[in-house]
Amino acid sequence: MLPDPIKKFTEIFSKFPSIGPRQATRLAFYIAGLGKTKIKEISDAISGLYELNTCARCFHTYNQYSGGRTDEKLCPICSDPTRKKEIIAIIEKETDLISLEKTKKFNGWYLLIGELHKTGELEPEQKLRLASLKTFIKKNLGDRAKEIILAINPTVYGDLNAALLKKELEEYTEKITRLGRGIPTGGEIEFADEETLGQAIDRRN
Amino acid sequence: MLPDPIKKFTEIFSKFPSIGPRQATRLAFYIAGLGKTKIKEISDAISGLYELNTCARCFHTYNQYSGGRTDEKLCPICSDPTRKKEIIAIIEKETDLISLEKTKKFNGWYLLIGELHKTGELEPEQKLRLASLKTFIKKNLGDRAKEIILAINPTVYGDLNAALLKKELEEYTEKITRLGRGIPTGGEIEFADEETLGQAIDRRN
Repeated sequence: MLPDPIKKFTEIFSKFPSIGPRQATRLAFYIAGLGKTKIKEISDAISGLYELNTCARCFHTYNQYSGGRTDEKLCPICSDPTRKKEIIAIIEKETDLISLEKTKKFNGWYLLIGELHKTGELEPEQKLRLASLKTFIKKNLGDRAKEIILAINPTVYGDLNAALLKKELEEYTEKITRLGRGIPTGGEIEFADEETLGQAIDRRN
Repeated sequence: MLPDPIKKFTEIFSKFPSIGPRQATRLAFYIAGLGKTKIKEISDAISGLYELNTCARCFHTYNQYSGGRTDEKLCPICSDPTRKKEIIAIIEKETDLISLEKTKKFNGWYLLIGELHKTGELEPEQKLRLASLKTFIKKNLGDRAKEIILAINPTVYGDLNAALLKKELEEYTEKITRLGRGIPTGGEIEFADEETLGQAIDRRN
């Protein structure tokens, strides 16, 4: 029933995170209706993503090759000599990195582990990234990092994953922390849910 | 902060229906991480959408040129001689057409008008499509169509738009109808909302 190019597009796009088959089909028809110039522009924007590099240390996606050892491609953060190598924030998503960088409050580096499963199970790629972090620590930080921040969402699943990552990493660092929890700035006590408020009391300072 | 190719992709994709800037950025990073072969495949899938045609009569997107007058490109439905030219369903989306075709209950043709505004205002392109329908009726159906079905969602906004379209079209057709409304097959009275149940009583048969 669906024209082949629409079917093809739907097949590919419905596998993307938070896009279902329905939305993918609608998107396909929408793009098909935009005309040649616009379709070319979209297709080029996607090809353009291939120019990006993945940092060999933190697995962050970045624009240009920017220094570091010649046999190792490092992102601007990892190749910045002013950033502290002994403080590492473990993050799930690129966009989390961007949010954290915007605060200008963190001067360590990130390990991008990828989105964690609700079950706490690690994917093979995630295991490799953790192993790579451990190797980096042993090789460059004299046995232990100073601090590993598990910058993972403060949800039930996040808590589970944080507990498991803590077990994995505690012998590689002096301290393991998580981001502060409580009432968001500008939020009102009246509207905070019980869990948030409970955390805000426990972590009062 | 965002790498240029990610920014470019986000700019384009966040304008698409039901994709916000946040989702677009995540998608960009996701695709960037898929590697060259996959990125090429996605970019090709999008270029492939340009092969599609728009039917000159119903504005439906279709795969190949399939008959009709040589100066007019018609879709398989509009060029099918067994389908009744005097019954027209006005639909908002390509996917609605597909859903209706699947029922095998409709043997007329469709006018794809595009998604209607909540305000009831018509876009210039939508006015052109209505004008093209009126011309078709005058020219081919001897003044009036037999039936125009306003196959528009049974929502408050759909009702508003249907009322406005009815005014536009009533002199061009013997009958204007909308799709039946009531409890969905397999649904339970207990769980039907008041509005649905009310419609089901009004339209009992």
